[in-house]
Amino acid sequence: MKKTTRTETPDGAGTWRLLSMTADSKNEAAFDYLAAASKVALKLAETAVERDVKGAHPHQEIGLLREAGLLELVAPIELGGHGVRWIDTLPVLRTISAADGSIGQLLIYHYVNSYVPLLFGTPAEATYHVQQQVTNRWYVADAINPLSPPLDVIKNEHGFVVNGTVSFSTGVAVSQRTIITPTVDGVQYFASIPTDRRGLAVNDDWDNIGQRLTSSGSATFHDFQVLNEELFTKFPVGTRPNPFATLATPLAQLGHVNLYLGIASGALEQAAEYTRNITRPWLFSGVNRAVDDPYIAERYGVLVADLSASIALADQAGRKVQAALDRGDLLSADERAEVAIEVAKAKVHSTATALSITAKIFEVTGARATGRKHGFDRFWRNVRTLTLHDPVFYKQKEVGNYFLSGLKPEFSLYT
Amino acid sequence: MKKTTRTETPDGAGTWRLLSMTADSKNEAAFDYLAAASKVALKLAETAVERDVKGAHPHQEIGLLREAGLLELVAPIELGGHGVRWIDTLPVLRTISAADGSIGQLLIYHYVNSYVPLLFGTPAEATYHVQQQVTNRWYVADAINPLSPPLDVIKNEHGFVVNGTVSFSTGVAVSQRTIITPTVDGVQYFASIPTDRRGLAVNDDWDNIGQRLTSSGSATFHDFQVLNEELFTKFPVGTRPNPFATLATPLAQLGHVNLYLGIASGALEQAAEYTRNITRPWLFSGVNRAVDDPYIAERYGVLVADLSASIALADQAGRKVQAALDRGDLLSADERAEVAIEVAKAKVHSTATALSITAKIFEVTGARATGRKHGFDRFWRNVRTLTLHDPVFYKQKEVGNYFLSGLKPEFSLYT
Amino acid sequence: MKKTTRTETPDGAGTWRLLSMTADSKNEAAFDYLAAASKVALKLAETAVERDVKGAHPHQEIGLLREAGLLELVAPIELGGHGVRWIDTLPVLRTISAADGSIGQLLIYHYVNSYVPLLFGTPAEATYHVQQQVTNRWYVADAINPLSPPLDVIKNEHGFVVNGTVSFSTGVAVSQRTIITPTVDGVQYFASIPTDRRGLAVNDDWDNIGQRLTSSGSATFHDFQVLNEELFTKFPVGTRPNPFATLATPLAQLGHVNLYLGIASGALEQAAEYTRNITRPWLFSGVNRAVDDPYIAERYGVLVADLSASIALADQAGRKVQAALDRGDLLSADERAEVAIEVAKAKVHSTATALSITAKIFEVTGARATGRKHGFDRFWRNVRTLTLHDPVFYKQKEVGNYFLSGLKPEFSLYT
Amino acid sequence: MKKTTRTETPDGAGTWRLLSMTADSKNEAAFDYLAAASKVALKLAETAVERDVKGAHPHQEIGLLREAGLLELVAPIELGGHGVRWIDTLPVLRTISAADGSIGQLLIYHYVNSYVPLLFGTPAEATYHVQQQVTNRWYVADAINPLSPPLDVIKNEHGFVVNGTVSFSTGVAVSQRTIITPTVDGVQYFASIPTDRRGLAVNDDWDNIGQRLTSSGSATFHDFQVLNEELFTKFPVGTRPNPFATLATPLAQLGHVNLYLGIASGALEQAAEYTRNITRPWLFSGVNRAVDDPYIAERYGVLVADLSASIALADQAGRKVQAALDRGDLLSADERAEVAIEVAKAKVHSTATALSITAKIFEVTGARATGRKHGFDRFWRNVRTLTLHDPVFYKQKEVGNYFLSGLKPEFSLYT
Repeated sequence: MKKTTRTETPDGAGTWRLLSMTADSKNEAAFDYLAAASKVALKLAETAVERDVKGAHPHQEIGLLREAGLLELVAPIELGGHGVRWIDTLPVLRTISAADGSIGQLLIYHYVNSYVPLLFGTPAEATYHVQQQVTNRWYVADAINPLSPPLDVIKNEHGFVVNGTVSFSTGVAVSQRTIITPTVDGVQYFASIPTDRRGLAVNDDWDNIGQRLTSSGSATFHDFQVLNEELFTKFPVGTRPNPFATLATPLAQLGHVNLYLGIASGALEQAAEYTRNITRPWLFSGVNRAVDDPYIAERYGVLVADLSASIALADQAGRKVQAALDRGDLLSADERAEVAIEVAKAKVHSTATALSITAKIFEVTGARATGRKHGFDRFWRNVRTLTLHDPVFYKQKEVGNYFLSGLKPEFSLYT
Repeated sequence: MKKTTRTETPDGAGTWRLLSMTADSKNEAAFDYLAAASKVALKLAETAVERDVKGAHPHQEIGLLREAGLLELVAPIELGGHGVRWIDTLPVLRTISAADGSIGQLLIYHYVNSYVPLLFGTPAEATYHVQQQVTNRWYVADAINPLSPPLDVIKNEHGFVVNGTVSFSTGVAVSQRTIITPTVDGVQYFASIPTDRRGLAVNDDWDNIGQRLTSSGSATFHDFQVLNEELFTKFPVGTRPNPFATLATPLAQLGHVNLYLGIASGALEQAAEYTRNITRPWLFSGVNRAVDDPYIAERYGVLVADLSASIALADQAGRKVQAALDRGDLLSADERAEVAIEVAKAKVHSTATALSITAKIFEVTGARATGRKHGFDRFWRNVRTLTLHDPVFYKQKEVGNYFLSGLKPEFSLYT
Repeated sequence: MKKTTRTETPDGAGTWRLLSMTADSKNEAAFDYLAAASKVALKLAETAVERDVKGAHPHQEIGLLREAGLLELVAPIELGGHGVRWIDTLPVLRTISAADGSIGQLLIYHYVNSYVPLLFGTPAEATYHVQQQVTNRWYVADAINPLSPPLDVIKNEHGFVVNGTVSFSTGVAVSQRTIITPTVDGVQYFASIPTDRRGLAVNDDWDNIGQRLTSSGSATFHDFQVLNEELFTKFPVGTRPNPFATLATPLAQLGHVNLYLGIASGALEQAAEYTRNITRPWLFSGVNRAVDDPYIAERYGVLVADLSASIALADQAGRKVQAALDRGDLLSADERAEVAIEVAKAKVHSTATALSITAKIFEVTGARATGRKHGFDRFWRNVRTLTLHDPVFYKQKEVGNYFLSGLKPEFSLYT
Repeated sequence: MKKTTRTETPDGAGTWRLLSMTADSKNEAAFDYLAAASKVALKLAETAVERDVKGAHPHQEIGLLREAGLLELVAPIELGGHGVRWIDTLPVLRTISAADGSIGQLLIYHYVNSYVPLLFGTPAEATYHVQQQVTNRWYVADAINPLSPPLDVIKNEHGFVVNGTVSFSTGVAVSQRTIITPTVDGVQYFASIPTDRRGLAVNDDWDNIGQRLTSSGSATFHDFQVLNEELFTKFPVGTRPNPFATLATPLAQLGHVNLYLGIASGALEQAAEYTRNITRPWLFSGVNRAVDDPYIAERYGVLVADLSASIALADQAGRKVQAALDRGDLLSADERAEVAIEVAKAKVHSTATALSITAKIFEVTGARATGRKHGFDRFWRNVRTLTLHDPVFYKQKEVGNYFLSGLKPEFSLYT
């Protein structure tokens, strides 16, 4: 199980199908980011099982993304990035996630965090912050969690002094910059702060069953000084950012969708490789090769069809998100709602699909596939952990409310 | 339940979403066939429930399709048709099927049957037959069933004399032309024969639980004279038609997929209209309107997400089928296999989705929705009947075999 | 499809398994009610398909139950009945329901209605009413629906004068006596009234997709005189009847459970007979008999296992209900709650099982099994209609609340 | 998560329901084995999470079973055992498995292995071997795997000399005696050998995702001398043991069923305790306690109903197995087949149920429940590993074949 299955599928059937780019995406950039992603994925797959066991901070893995040029993928060309459209990052995400779901999650979080100045900032702020990120090749995490108590903030001449703890601060431990959202005097700010400044401590309290390399522990601020120039947005609490800015949530949720599907793709492809090469035909099957077992073939058919449907829906949501981004500040609240619901539908469907596939691969690989050296349970553990980010029941309700009553989801970090 | 729900959804949310055109389809024809289809669908919906009960031969309904200009939709412009691409017929199919699944089935069967000369015939044969169809505005059925014993065929000077019975000859009773595939002296022919010629009798033996208006009874040939000029293809038994010609099966299967999804869309939209207007909140729900019941909203969310995924996959398959058609005789066997599998995946998924949705609409509409006047069970009966056309287990196996072993499906009327 | 499959299963495997008595039930009565029920079931099965189409009032079918002695089954021996325990009526119910779900429903409703005086009445009232029923061999229906507006009641010297309409008054049209629950001056009464007395009109408004022979239309009271001697219970509104009396609801719900399972058993057995004798092996199956198709055999295995589990749970609930009945007035509220939850669990499970089986039998019988003459869709239509009696979501919540929080369901006509 | 949830459920609702004894089991032995099992389970639960991580050989845990007197549970009283009926061991198994699935598996394997002389041996052999086991309080494992190449056996004056490797030799590492089945000269023997004799090496190659404490690695025999007195059965290869003896497989399979259900019960009860005490209500739920979330309560309802149905079916199978055991040598091949199918149905159902419950507990406990300290994934990992013992597809087929065609399963180690 040391390598991804890319090149080993008989005549390529299936493999590229699952992870393929969206039908209408086209790479017009000079940078062949898909090839770069594949290379990183191959490298990550080599050691995915061992790294999952250890669950250490993935400094080296972030390094791979950086060296491959993938951190700057979505930054506009004029600001030094590769200017790749969001929709075209999805195959990248799926490719990385098929090899290592944790690194996929870190990548998409970085994409969203590093894009926040373009969504919420003034043009000048966006230019400043994105250029800084690109020039310094920073990995950008965030310490924002609406379920944690708000940070304690005191203004001073240099900016703000911040105290408090934020749980689930994914990626902060391996980041150069961290986004926070301090609120003071009834105004909400965004800030991009240096992670290594005195006063920010990452707690080693992420030891979970899945997504073990995401450094998702809590972060504690102790008299942390935020400088004025690090603030890039302000809007009065209670007012709503414009619809374009609030695409941040659909972008993050769409990232989740593609993470689930990338992990499920990786699971299905590795399982198929195992079935082809290792699974022994069952005693009563009357066949000589496991691939000829009527039940095994048929079940793969179901899993492939499910995954394909989920990916097709995710791609459709991706096209709608891209179209919404392309509308920019012209985007209306109604249009934003429609896009958010498209993403929500994909989230609902991919949650079910990814959980099902990552659990059922064992039924088509057999008892010996439970050996820890194969690491086949990590796919399920990763999906199981990720899909609890926000309860799928409420996502389902959101979709139903919109369909039945035209009810638009309110902007939040989950909707 | 007299009208389709098109214009009655609050702010249009949901409705157009379900039945919408494929993302990249564009109507470049002068003929606004989608508007035409919507008009026919509205008309059909008015009496769908009563007509389902009667199950009579749908002469009048075929008349509606004819008058709307929908019979000539896919015929090339140069042969007098509208030259609409296959992919663009899918929303038409879904729209008609949402109102009446039987008429949807008759329409897609006509599209395939009337396209057969373009797939299997010589250019001259294709031109002759398609022009005849278009000029005379024929509805074209077929009497082909690989599970029936082959027709008894004797050559004579005028052509062939045919005897025998073909079961499940959908639409022959309402057709002007019927496609048959007589085999003689080791050569397989196609023929397009006039349905009303002496010697062809339609048996009134279609009385099934669903798709009741499809006139799918058997047809009996008694000394039926096929004329030489009605034959349009011949190839030796045992040889294979070229890959392009064998797209006939993916086209028919893709039609099935879109029938299922059209029916499921109709079911879900009519259910939602019922929930909004008629369903009473449950005694213990604590809400005043059924749409505010937490379980009802959430379940609609699941059903909408499932349907959307299935439609997205069907659309993706549609794009691949279109691309394959566009390749024409250059299409390779490998490319044909890939397209066939894309359609098979969509068939597997839409079978499950359509069965689930048409059964579950009752859980979100309530006990009174079982009144026969609402006709809500016809959706399930239609899907249940249609999805047995060929066993889904073997479709699943086909997809699995291709994914696992690169096994290509052999051309047949089912694969 | 003219006969039940009882005696035709190869070596009896399976058949008796599905419909068998509960493991520990024993018929100590002289009356072989199971044989009687089987005889009625055979008779009903002969014409079940045609009668389903017509949906007429089942006067003759009630006659069959009466002649077979099944109406007096649960009445105590000392009051002239057969004194069969509730738990032992369940195989009777399942047997009748396997042949005709409507007649099964009418039978269980009669059992509950004719038992109501024993639950809610004084000993004298119970004796009087039950003896009357038994002596006259009455079929007892009810016109009680908590979702209808309450009846308008005026006291007079002879008793009460009642006006109003009750929807879903199952069986009133074929009954001799009807139970109603008039409320006046803050006191709730039960009354057993003669159905044919002037002032009670049965409306012909039951024309639903399933359970078509249950005469479940509405009943209208127009200046209907209820006599004092017909009243048999009174308790102040707002007070609660004792736990024993409120077993009426678990009894009715347990009846529902066994109806679902009886119908599902009938569906599965008739399907199996069809598969054995009629289904043709699929073109690509490589087998000569449908029963040897690997997918068909395997799917039957799943359906049989599901049904068996549901029946086992229903039987367990039956044993607990019987034990609760045996406790009589000693039954505590806690014990009543526990029993109600056992029944609720069986209801939740049997709902899912019966819906699944009655839909999936088509996948193991094939396309031709959709012929209307086989009537295979009536099983699903019956279960689909019955299972909407009260929303399963809330039954699920009830079970969950008890498990999680020890919350006891309040007595109502549904809980 | 340090303790089992037994005594902590509000008013006991639910808890005892899940793990309760079968309805008709009664402990007539003086030994309160259920109390003993509960005590061991409590002890095991204290450290289950840590022990799962380590996956060491469970010498100490077997010691707990021994000290509690549970190893001698099924041995006949006249041979020094507790003479508990098989059916009454099932609650014991479920109780132990709810706390630690691995120890549950070791216990049931011991029960079957120590019972083998009573099934296959002569009375004298049975007496000798069982008395030895009981007197010495041996834990008895086996090294039998039909999927491994047969052992190489050479006869000599003292008995046999055995060479070869058997994979998946569960429990050998912690056993005092090991059952093997050498075949020589066309005769199959059973032998009960001392595990610590020279020539038997246990390989440390069990490092799997679940059931980590079962010591299920392979065992290698190198010139291992089996003594004549250790042989206790012989029958010519190709002949069949009598039906009673072949109950060994249903006993083992029934053990599996109860293992799955015990683990699932443990999962559900620990999840409920977590939901009650730790889960935070969701941001958009509008409730103050997670137990009041409408979706959480409803989903628990579904899981409880599913588990209850599966347990009811397992109990029913248990009663049939017990009845078959009680028939002894009078048991016919037909009766054995019927019992085997009852167990197979329970296996099919419990496989699905246990997989579903152990995966879904996360949806009702929430994101933080994925912390490794809670160990909630071990339930799924255990069930996922166990349920691959033999493919459920073929078990389903077995049930279907019997139902459809009366086909009896042939005796094997799986059927």
